[in-house]
Amino acid sequence: MQKHISSLQNPLIKQILQLGEKSRERKKQGLFVVEGQREISLAMKGSYEIETLLFCSEIITSEALTLLQKEISANYETIEISKEVYEKLAYRTTTEGVIAICKTKKLTLSQLNISNKNPLILVAEAPEKPGNIGALLRTADAANVDAVIIANPKTDMYNPNIIRSSVGCVFTNQIAIGNTSEIIQFLKDKKIAMYCAALQASIPYHTCDFKTSSAIVVGTEADGLSEDWLQNSTQNIIIPMQGEIDSMNVSVAAGILIFEAKRQRNFK
Amino acid sequence: MQKHISSLQNPLIKQILQLGEKSRERKKQGLFVVEGQREISLAMKGSYEIETLLFCSEIITSEALTLLQKEISANYETIEISKEVYEKLAYRTTTEGVIAICKTKKLTLSQLNISNKNPLILVAEAPEKPGNIGALLRTADAANVDAVIIANPKTDMYNPNIIRSSVGCVFTNQIAIGNTSEIIQFLKDKKIAMYCAALQASIPYHTCDFKTSSAIVVGTEADGLSEDWLQNSTQNIIIPMQGEIDSMNVSVAAGILIFEAKRQRNFK
Repeated sequence: MQKHISSLQNPLIKQILQLGEKSRERKKQGLFVVEGQREISLAMKGSYEIETLLFCSEIITSEALTLLQKEISANYETIEISKEVYEKLAYRTTTEGVIAICKTKKLTLSQLNISNKNPLILVAEAPEKPGNIGALLRTADAANVDAVIIANPKTDMYNPNIIRSSVGCVFTNQIAIGNTSEIIQFLKDKKIAMYCAALQASIPYHTCDFKTSSAIVVGTEADGLSEDWLQNSTQNIIIPMQGEIDSMNVSVAAGILIFEAKRQRNFK
Repeated sequence: MQKHISSLQNPLIKQILQLGEKSRERKKQGLFVVEGQREISLAMKGSYEIETLLFCSEIITSEALTLLQKEISANYETIEISKEVYEKLAYRTTTEGVIAICKTKKLTLSQLNISNKNPLILVAEAPEKPGNIGALLRTADAANVDAVIIANPKTDMYNPNIIRSSVGCVFTNQIAIGNTSEIIQFLKDKKIAMYCAALQASIPYHTCDFKTSSAIVVGTEADGLSEDWLQNSTQNIIIPMQGEIDSMNVSVAAGILIFEAKRQRNFK
């Protein structure tokens, strides 16, 4: 028989709220929350495991639910929830009536699978805003980069704001998290050149050759990259700025650099 | 003697709150609010007129205030406000103790002053989020484009969220607002080619020649450009997408297109 929850006081509902709000809880439990048919479908494509699928029959059609369930391979529990409960859990105003509890992945450097002989990798150090991380992941997906590596992130990748602003690209990219020194070592070991966006001793980005193994490394808008990167940089690069204000959104800057590399590689 | 306001009920304070909140009030009164030393300074550089300057002596040093006042040429009133009043008005948590009421400009096409023989113009149709408009304006400033034209905006340019997210680039760019048909006519009259970001009948953006007079035209993430643009387009262009999700932040896409044009023009 179908399990049904209509109480906001139900422990599972409280657990889901905590998973959405607290990075600490996500880490402790190894679980996170995904909302929306498209996002859940992308999580499945990205080989995430679903533990529980919650749906609100007043919102999602049984047809859409069945289609979604066909995409899920492993065992999981399905629970119907009331509209009141759904609205308490749901992040969006335009809701789709379905929420999944998924298992997190260990996003370690050693688990990256880079088959390309001349990989193109995006590295972002300490990106602050979930919206910026989301935009970076969308750009990385569009460019089909070989990996996205985040150094010293201020939040985990399963923050609901990141999932949402990435429109699911958090599931379609190969992502690794690490501290700056281990990432530098990783890139050195793999003989991947580090092109660091920085003001000092830099050349205009479009004069740099990105056709061989390249990591494009961007820092924060406020502070740029840390000293460690600058000391290990293969070549610092700069986007020539010709306006009044020496300022660009970090995800825009990363987009310009990544797509210049793509252009040089003839989008192959 | 220095005028001083310490009551939240003061009519001027209520007026400022309304100017921040309501586009309609800004239009009716022809006034808007700028917060922060740097932003006010940029508004002065952008030839905006200040009507009233409000400062909180508990926050801004008299030295900083004097420096700022030196940049203001025309007549204006200076008013000291209490910390309580400042905190009620201020947008930011990291505040700078100074707020200005400025006169809006008529951002019409006819007032654009384009001296470049081969101008590069950014056109955005119906951009939705203030944060996206802010990022577009930052990119436009960095690229030193000849003008930014916004077709059918959902808000006026003096929305505090736009001023803030543009980090003042709303003052450093030449901006015009218009409806799509008058903008198309304007570009035709000036013989400026329209390169429209669109899926249909498009060529990869990097194979397009942006060295002559060019407008790069981007639509919304959800709906793209309206039919009018597609019918009048000189050439549709596309950023090749190679990921799972055919999606890119509009300000990132605009950045990639504008900087490809800059690259072709050798950043001149």
